[in-house]
Amino acid sequence: MTTYRRVEEKELFRFAQQVLEAAGTSPENAAIMAEHLVQAELHGLGSHGVSRLLGIYAARLRAGGMNPQPNIRAVRQVKSGAVVDGDHGSGMVVGRYAMDLAIKLAQEHGSGWVAVRNSSHYGAAFLFARQAIAQGMIGFSTTSSVALVAPFGGRKRALGTNPICIAVPGGERGNIILDMATSVVARGKIQLAALEGREIPLGWAVDEEGRPTTDPVAASKGCLLPVGGPKGYGLALIVEVFSALLSGAAFGSQIGSLFADLDKPQNMGHFFGALDISIFAPLDEFRARMDRLVEYIKSVPTAEGFDEILLPGEPEVRKATRYREEGIPIAEDVIKKLDELAKEYQVSPLQSK
Amino acid sequence: MTTYRRVEEKELFRFAQQVLEAAGTSPENAAIMAEHLVQAELHGLGSHGVSRLLGIYAARLRAGGMNPQPNIRAVRQVKSGAVVDGDHGSGMVVGRYAMDLAIKLAQEHGSGWVAVRNSSHYGAAFLFARQAIAQGMIGFSTTSSVALVAPFGGRKRALGTNPICIAVPGGERGNIILDMATSVVARGKIQLAALEGREIPLGWAVDEEGRPTTDPVAASKGCLLPVGGPKGYGLALIVEVFSALLSGAAFGSQIGSLFADLDKPQNMGHFFGALDISIFAPLDEFRARMDRLVEYIKSVPTAEGFDEILLPGEPEVRKATRYREEGIPIAEDVIKKLDELAKEYQVSPLQSK
Repeated sequence: MTTYRRVEEKELFRFAQQVLEAAGTSPENAAIMAEHLVQAELHGLGSHGVSRLLGIYAARLRAGGMNPQPNIRAVRQVKSGAVVDGDHGSGMVVGRYAMDLAIKLAQEHGSGWVAVRNSSHYGAAFLFARQAIAQGMIGFSTTSSVALVAPFGGRKRALGTNPICIAVPGGERGNIILDMATSVVARGKIQLAALEGREIPLGWAVDEEGRPTTDPVAASKGCLLPVGGPKGYGLALIVEVFSALLSGAAFGSQIGSLFADLDKPQNMGHFFGALDISIFAPLDEFRARMDRLVEYIKSVPTAEGFDEILLPGEPEVRKATRYREEGIPIAEDVIKKLDELAKEYQVSPLQSK
Repeated sequence: MTTYRRVEEKELFRFAQQVLEAAGTSPENAAIMAEHLVQAELHGLGSHGVSRLLGIYAARLRAGGMNPQPNIRAVRQVKSGAVVDGDHGSGMVVGRYAMDLAIKLAQEHGSGWVAVRNSSHYGAAFLFARQAIAQGMIGFSTTSSVALVAPFGGRKRALGTNPICIAVPGGERGNIILDMATSVVARGKIQLAALEGREIPLGWAVDEEGRPTTDPVAASKGCLLPVGGPKGYGLALIVEVFSALLSGAAFGSQIGSLFADLDKPQNMGHFFGALDISIFAPLDEFRARMDRLVEYIKSVPTAEGFDEILLPGEPEVRKATRYREEGIPIAEDVIKKLDELAKEYQVSPLQSK
């Protein structure tokens, strides 16, 4: 059984920032990366947090595949749109720059749209889109990613899990933050089933020949499937268009791996947007409408096996509230790896509560 | 077995326009509605075409639930956004006005976004989004719709099948036009299975108690399910926010029926958008990138049971090309109903080839 230690948010941030600085990035950029890694972990997304990403980010910064001192800049800015060149920096740092620019463009034009090239893995999509909420805007964030998913009707990996995130500011009843991969499941779930010797449900993946499989080992050699067949495939393709084609970033199998070729840039693309609600309605009025929609949804009787109906993003926000209080749970195995990182980068080890 | 007659595009248009004019709408508005109904039919979407919609649209125009002489206008226009009041006119006419405005705003600001209230059923989503393609823009079109779908974890109808359409201009290899309901299937497929006494696959719908069912009759009394559970539910909720909340249109169960209460406005809302590609890249360059993406996707080896990998929208475009040549197939049963319409509205009956 996995056991966990509890770590305070501040301490996790301190640790991540010091490792990233030691790996060669500036204090400011290390702070942005640490914030994203800690926020993801705080919201229960260890797969996008310190647990899974800190070590590989630090290794890429050292090896040069992730530029520790990127010169991020807008290479084109026309009306409500811009193209940002990330100079192969961390996707978190590049994404922060691009989302800030999208918000600035939206303040001027009512909406702002920024396509990004020459970037890297950017972690949790919702952390960028969420930036817009504080400005009374709807935020958008998508990224292309390493090819793992078969197109509908195909049997080879061609598209990433290509997430879509849309964050909408709400009223007293909370925001709606949809952050979804366009594949049925993430690769991690299949890897976990293989480790634990469990079958996977039919429909998650196909084997190397493109045949539906319940065998997680065969599935790991094959590819993930898009959610809802042609629908998830269509959404993934649209994400590829927005994240890669608008900026001229790499797409599909040209995108570099995160975990291999540490010295090679991934040339990943992203897309960010901000839509100012006040161009349509006074923000207070919109917030009141959001409250009515949330109350309406919450009043729907639940199906068997459900206690309540949740909003997109609500489970994660609840976890964050609890973990902020109780400390963030980090698995013992992960703690061991972070202790090794501490030695490697010569920073004080992570203190648990 | 269903038998079909072939009808020429022009003749179908003539017939639809005359019926709609006889039902009280202006020649110009009847032409817009007829164009949308014929285009949907031409692309193989009889559910959004003359076959299923002409009669009910004419009846609503006569009964007053669809305003035959609407005063459609922008009630708010700020920077790259606008709110359009449809004065309870046909969603096709209102949508055309709103999408034209979105394109105009995009010509000025690089992107344009129009939220619509006081509208009605708008037919096929892609016909609006597609308008942007000719302008070198990406088009967006969503609509809220009559509540038929349970939220994830719920057992009552709360959200519409809430389609999302995104249309992207391509190069020589064609455009990408994704037009998808956010439910697993449309209600029509379940109604058809009930008529034919076939079971439906598990996962399409739940019965009145919210239990998964393969019985199409029980499913018809229950509700449709969102595609991919929480993912489709999240997308449907986002569509509701964009289509209803930004403009202040009705949402959820407040949206009026299309087929009942013919004298009552539906108060439906839509959302349209246009994103000018040239703010990111020269259009020719983008088109070349699209061709490379399409070639990449088409080169993926096919899975068992598939001959080729299709782009979103490609099957419909192929049908349109064929039907334009061969005539549009209209089922005999539908022809009979259209003959009755011809009598009721005193127009020449539809001529088949």
